[in-house]
Amino acid sequence: MQMHGKNIIGAQLSSAGEKTFQAYDPRRGEAVGPLFHETTAKEVDRALMLAENAVAELREMEADGIADFLLSIRDEISGIGDNLIATAAQETGLDEARLKGERDRTLNQIKLFAEIVREGSWVDALIDTPLPDRKPLPRPDIRRMLRPIGPVAVFGASNFPLAFSVAGGDTVSAFAAGNPVVVKAHPAHPGTSELVASAIIKAVKARSIPEGTFSLLHGKSPEVSVSLVTHPNTKAVGFTGSGRAGRALFDAAARRPNPIPVYAEMGSVNPVFVLPGILKSNGQAIAEGLSRSVLLGVGQFCTCPGLVFGVDSDSFENFQGKLIDAFEQASPGTMLNPAIAKAYADDFERVAGVKGIERHVSARSGDPHKTEGQPGVLMTDLNNWLASKELHGEIFGPSTVVVHCGSPDQLLKAARALEGTLTATIHGTTEELSKHSELVEILSRKAGRLVFNGFPTGVEVGYAMHHGGPYPATTDEKFTSVGATAIYRFARPVCYQGFPQHLLPTELQDANPRGIWRIVDGQFTRNAI
Amino acid sequence: MQMHGKNIIGAQLSSAGEKTFQAYDPRRGEAVGPLFHETTAKEVDRALMLAENAVAELREMEADGIADFLLSIRDEISGIGDNLIATAAQETGLDEARLKGERDRTLNQIKLFAEIVREGSWVDALIDTPLPDRKPLPRPDIRRMLRPIGPVAVFGASNFPLAFSVAGGDTVSAFAAGNPVVVKAHPAHPGTSELVASAIIKAVKARSIPEGTFSLLHGKSPEVSVSLVTHPNTKAVGFTGSGRAGRALFDAAARRPNPIPVYAEMGSVNPVFVLPGILKSNGQAIAEGLSRSVLLGVGQFCTCPGLVFGVDSDSFENFQGKLIDAFEQASPGTMLNPAIAKAYADDFERVAGVKGIERHVSARSGDPHKTEGQPGVLMTDLNNWLASKELHGEIFGPSTVVVHCGSPDQLLKAARALEGTLTATIHGTTEELSKHSELVEILSRKAGRLVFNGFPTGVEVGYAMHHGGPYPATTDEKFTSVGATAIYRFARPVCYQGFPQHLLPTELQDANPRGIWRIVDGQFTRNAI
Repeated sequence: MQMHGKNIIGAQLSSAGEKTFQAYDPRRGEAVGPLFHETTAKEVDRALMLAENAVAELREMEADGIADFLLSIRDEISGIGDNLIATAAQETGLDEARLKGERDRTLNQIKLFAEIVREGSWVDALIDTPLPDRKPLPRPDIRRMLRPIGPVAVFGASNFPLAFSVAGGDTVSAFAAGNPVVVKAHPAHPGTSELVASAIIKAVKARSIPEGTFSLLHGKSPEVSVSLVTHPNTKAVGFTGSGRAGRALFDAAARRPNPIPVYAEMGSVNPVFVLPGILKSNGQAIAEGLSRSVLLGVGQFCTCPGLVFGVDSDSFENFQGKLIDAFEQASPGTMLNPAIAKAYADDFERVAGVKGIERHVSARSGDPHKTEGQPGVLMTDLNNWLASKELHGEIFGPSTVVVHCGSPDQLLKAARALEGTLTATIHGTTEELSKHSELVEILSRKAGRLVFNGFPTGVEVGYAMHHGGPYPATTDEKFTSVGATAIYRFARPVCYQGFPQHLLPTELQDANPRGIWRIVDGQFTRNAI
Repeated sequence: MQMHGKNIIGAQLSSAGEKTFQAYDPRRGEAVGPLFHETTAKEVDRALMLAENAVAELREMEADGIADFLLSIRDEISGIGDNLIATAAQETGLDEARLKGERDRTLNQIKLFAEIVREGSWVDALIDTPLPDRKPLPRPDIRRMLRPIGPVAVFGASNFPLAFSVAGGDTVSAFAAGNPVVVKAHPAHPGTSELVASAIIKAVKARSIPEGTFSLLHGKSPEVSVSLVTHPNTKAVGFTGSGRAGRALFDAAARRPNPIPVYAEMGSVNPVFVLPGILKSNGQAIAEGLSRSVLLGVGQFCTCPGLVFGVDSDSFENFQGKLIDAFEQASPGTMLNPAIAKAYADDFERVAGVKGIERHVSARSGDPHKTEGQPGVLMTDLNNWLASKELHGEIFGPSTVVVHCGSPDQLLKAARALEGTLTATIHGTTEELSKHSELVEILSRKAGRLVFNGFPTGVEVGYAMHHGGPYPATTDEKFTSVGATAIYRFARPVCYQGFPQHLLPTELQDANPRGIWRIVDGQFTRNAI
């Protein structure tokens, strides 16, 4: 399949910009694929004008129509076949097994949102029936449900070329809520993005979905991103990436004459607390699991555990020894691109250079021609960690910082000093966990997800998943970018007062023809009124 | 009851500041009551340190404990008796009947939130049970619910000294979600604020609620407000007031190293569309209802209808004539304070001075010694309205702008040009409404609440109410400041993965001891697992 390297604006190819760029194969250290055309401000404007034009028709679509559209996207992505995996592998250096798993996950989350839309209760319908005889004033008929928010801008992530990119969770949950989406492809995998975007366009055409429902924009320059976020028609932004880029988009959106929400997921340190009791029985398995979790995907996950806290003891020393062994024996791996590999190497050196830090790296060093990152584990004590803010942030790559504390109480001190994070993990016996309820409570204020005796990587896509957390993990701790509730980023309540039955949205009509769950006069029910 | 004029910081009186101010009786045109002490930055810090100290204990409180605390606040406010009404009337110029109604509403909304907390399903519990045998990977046990967000800063509103102030919807919904609250009293009614705050403190003491759960701060200077919003312990902000003040707080919060949400409700124009058919049969009643709605409370409601659109016809001319009569015969009324009265007079003059505007004011002009505002209605045509941005914004006070359009299609043009608004109203026959589905759709993107054949003032406090809307009506169109769902501003999801049953929050345990509604494996249920 020949790639064209153009923007796709409402089903039309467009390459008005003079600036171009290419993808890069990090394993071979060379540029690959066609030239991709950077989007111009005028093209951004056209994408958002078309998106706005699509809004009314999308809002009127039946839920089944949206669900069918989502499933068509799923089929079209499946239909790309191995070329998608090969292209993504070439552009990201991620191995094919991982990418096949990521494709499955992408297809599964499309299916999940199709189910959610078809079932229909996600709209949070609330109905207060009228009380015409109430004194001193009658109560009117009031009904409220969620409606689509409007055009959504989505930024593809470098580390998930499928699951968090063109047809990833942001795009699919925005479609599910009934919105048009303009995706800014991540410039590290433009070819993968083009393939997936073409699949979406096929689904748009096959299902007679309005043209402006989807556009794909390319660009390396921050100006493209800022013009997308500040366009008057853009109503919300989904982003997964670095803290610096996420904050820049958040700031640009907050400075708009009419501010809009930016749901930026910016990664985190994902601390792991290892309690003493469990180490006695299970230290080796935890060390193995932990090093696997850190090294998975060359450490390029938002949920990579970057901090480990334990209490000084013989078993903790054993545990540290096992971790050191695992990292020394680990193999360097190809990272996503040279910028990320360089940032990793620089960050690791900077942190390893802090006074009082002991470092252990893999025996083999990374091959720069293959964009490899070298695994490493850093060791320090709590006082040193507390005193050095450099040790508190994320190092994006295959490393972790182990902090040993003098007593279990010091774990609380460590927990209180943590920044906001996506996840926090505790390893312990059940008895230990119940003794550490204060630790759990502190961590529940710092993290979006608490993991007990597991590892934070491998974010399950389901109803109950929350992939979010306090700043700097995200810009809005109320929302998740993974799981069913991700849809709530892209809808807003509208209340109908005194409307005749047949002019209400189906979900709010007395008969409840779709049989959705609603709260009627304060009671959950699927019954008609 | 003697007033002390001091800040109340975690149940202690505090008056470290040197700056003082007094309340002002707008009906008599004189300062009244004791000197109130402006809060210092140090006092703000103390309030937020105490609030943070209260967090852990509040998070562990049983739902019944929170509900009982709310009901104690309700009893204590009731117990103040007529002194509360007299003080509020003196400080705001609002009449006693209105204030008694507002007190009822305040007490009712406290009761509503007590019920919501006791019932318990508001926490949005989602449970995905484990699938240990799933291939290729087992699914872990994942459970998610809403938890309190942390210390909340609330800003009292000038126009609702009870329902949107010290123990108003913001404070009560933040308490209901399990958070401490620091209220910044509106400087126009500090005495009323002190009385209500003292009632809350009594409830805090009677129920052994932690001391830092509530503080009341006084101040006229913007510095007090900014230091409250930018304090590191503040996790969310509730505000009702002007667009300028709301945006200043939003900007201050967005510039923080760790941004926090500001839920600012900043009023709006609340457009009313009057369709031709209904005017033939019902023009007089609509004109009467509309002028009453505009003039209610001297036009000092966020939902005051400030724009009216109709289609040229004899019956529309009749309707306009009736409106003119009503405004010419209306009485000027005392406004909340001289600053608001002056802003109203200035805004009205500025808008009335736009070319092509016809003005009709009440026969009697306002008495400045009684801080009166003079009712007025302004008339113009659509082209003039479209061309003059000054005519698009809110004039806070007893006035409205009537815009006549050449055809029903022009109503769509008007609707498309509207700013975000809390409400939009349509008067028409049922048949007309069904013919104007496009108008409804456009308005549903502009407004938080659509009213059919009613008036937007009189915001019902219930489950289904949505009092919010796109910017500039609020800074976050997803949330409401009135009704049951107001609680969602002050809570955030936390996900528990792999936790032992007895260490989960009650709401997530298999047995579902509280019998709340949950979504288990995608299905709504109250059953145990």
